[in-house]
Amino acid sequence: RPSFSMQTVTLIPGDGIGPEISTAVMKIFEAAKAPIRWEERNVTAIKGPGGKWMIPPDAKESMDRSKIGLKGPLKTPIAAGHPSMNLLLRKTFDLYANVRPCISIEGYKTPYTDVNLVTIRENTEGEYSGIEHVIVDGVVQSIKLITEEASRRIAEYAFEYARNNQRNSVTAVHKANIMRMSDGLFLRKCREVAENYKDIKFTEMYLDTVCLNMVQDPTQFDVLVMPNLYGDILSDLCAGLIGGLGVTPSGNIGANGVAIFESVHGTAPDIAGLDMANPTALLLSAVMMLRHMGLHDHAHKIQMACFDTIRDKKVLTKDLGGNSKCSEFTAEICRRVQDLE
Amino acid sequence: RPSFSMQTVTLIPGDGIGPEISTAVMKIFEAAKAPIRWEERNVTAIKGPGGKWMIPPDAKESMDRSKIGLKGPLKTPIAAGHPSMNLLLRKTFDLYANVRPCISIEGYKTPYTDVNLVTIRENTEGEYSGIEHVIVDGVVQSIKLITEEASRRIAEYAFEYARNNQRNSVTAVHKANIMRMSDGLFLRKCREVAENYKDIKFTEMYLDTVCLNMVQDPTQFDVLVMPNLYGDILSDLCAGLIGGLGVTPSGNIGANGVAIFESVHGTAPDIAGLDMANPTALLLSAVMMLRHMGLHDHAHKIQMACFDTIRDKKVLTKDLGGNSKCSEFTAEICRRVQDLE
Ligand SMILES: CC(C)[C@H](C(=O)O)[C@@H](O)C(=O)O
Ligand SMILES: CC(C)[C@H](C(=O)O)[C@@H](O)C(=O)O
Repeated sequence: RPSFSMQTVTLIPGDGIGPEISTAVMKIFEAAKAPIRWEERNVTAIKGPGGKWMIPPDAKESMDRSKIGLKGPLKTPIAAGHPSMNLLLRKTFDLYANVRPCISIEGYKTPYTDVNLVTIRENTEGEYSGIEHVIVDGVVQSIKLITEEASRRIAEYAFEYARNNQRNSVTAVHKANIMRMSDGLFLRKCREVAENYKDIKFTEMYLDTVCLNMVQDPTQFDVLVMPNLYGDILSDLCAGLIGGLGVTPSGNIGANGVAIFESVHGTAPDIAGLDMANPTALLLSAVMMLRHMGLHDHAHKIQMACFDTIRDKKVLTKDLGGNSKCSEFTAEICRRVQDLE
Repeated sequence: RPSFSMQTVTLIPGDGIGPEISTAVMKIFEAAKAPIRWEERNVTAIKGPGGKWMIPPDAKESMDRSKIGLKGPLKTPIAAGHPSMNLLLRKTFDLYANVRPCISIEGYKTPYTDVNLVTIRENTEGEYSGIEHVIVDGVVQSIKLITEEASRRIAEYAFEYARNNQRNSVTAVHKANIMRMSDGLFLRKCREVAENYKDIKFTEMYLDTVCLNMVQDPTQFDVLVMPNLYGDILSDLCAGLIGGLGVTPSGNIGANGVAIFESVHGTAPDIAGLDMANPTALLLSAVMMLRHMGLHDHAHKIQMACFDTIRDKKVLTKDLGGNSKCSEFTAEICRRVQDLE
């Protein structure tokens, strides 16, 4: 076996159950001998010079160096004007692509089988521009901003992703029948980029039609690419098809290899500290991270141990239908990882 | 049995399979002795004075008189600047509420059972404002417009609907965490109106969370109310849960009793004229129409005959899994309607 040089990852354990599930991931990584050195950081926003909210300098500096982050759930403090921590991180590191593979997990029953798709969401603009005005009393406008550059960038990411991950088709999701100029621009860029990827089938579909078809037969979809809000919706919908946010990994990708992988479920304060949390979503996000770093063998081993544990149904956390603790579920995955050595 | 005075309904058969399924509905209404006089009109837009697209005066005049329309699928002509026929009708008659009851149909298998919810969509503003600009080359903005008046009106409609239809809860669907001002305004109006309906439970939920929960367990939802685009998405998603647009009715409600009921599937040009179409969506829309007109007995009888036919599985159109013609399916429903006399 080749030996790997250690790589640093910025670990943002997060709030609530965040620290427990982060510990679980670290244990499993250790069992898998993944060549990762963790650099733990707290990202809770602080008020910088000029009153602007920003993530603490030591967290920013760690990410700038490591380029790779793994992040548990964050609670957004309820302070006037406090931005969503998720949005702040996306912005700080220009994480322009949100990637969510939704793949049915054998042994975890949902109304669907054989789901195997990836949503790729433009993560920086669209309905998330933050620009809103009161026009006159009782009349408000929000601005959806679509740019050629961000549209081309996300389209290119989607096609590159498809090609690098042996996927056959990319579907652009839009409402260009209604938002002719903005979604029209997005769609045009997708079409243009598609021209350069003749090996990947390109289709276009209205968002409403995608939703309808998705719940009727999700197996017809492969890679989907779309503006910000549509991605917010579809990525959660698709997570629901395979069992929810507790089992769905997520990655936020920026330029030059920068990326933060995260579980997108909540902080679950009601069970925090009780050794009851399910670390699967964070673990599978960490597996995505390993792949992103080129550590495919480690990724494969950990993913297999996790899926085997779920399929086997003997040691499962409560939300997965079992009655084991987080630490027991983690130990079981570690055991299987070591058996795979 | 009481006798009813005849009421006029403007019938817009529409394109493609529209005429066949309209004929089916008329036959079934006749069998049910529904006291309806049909006034058939073509609504294909014409260019009015000043070059504005409008529906033909005789169609407008019929609707203005009858106040009630039943409409099959319309194709939007591919002419430069031609508006979507659906949008034009909504606008012409200020049909501000789109109502879609999604109720599982016994005997028609989908991944879900016991779905029983209603989506109520604001139909006039939001992302459908039609206002878009190029800011600079490659940068486009679309404007989402939310007004106090339209938000209050749709919220009031939703709560009235809930009360009049023995429903227990209304959920406002929003992204006020992102669009704080526009969705914030919508949400505030929902909250205010909720104050006047203490008998109805009010909840709020993010659109992404609704989508996730919807595919995991739709039975938790009752009445949902939301801005235009979210309604476009959710209404189609929910239609998917119960079997698609071929079996889902829809109503567009305006002020002063004006309403157009419609099947929201396409014109299916490939099977038009072949006696293969499924009239269920238009028929169930017509049943909604009868209820809207206070003709509850006729509505009940026709709905029962339709559902019995589907549950029985002996005479079904192809898309429903059978091999009967549209006319045979229609005759079977007529037979059952008459048996119920
Ligand atoms: C927390 C919230 C700002 C966020 C969003 O709307 O993007 C969330 O729903 C997500 O998908 O990460
Ligand atoms: C045809 C189109 C304009 C329309 C919409 O987007 O509203 C359709 O999807 C609908 O739901 O009626």
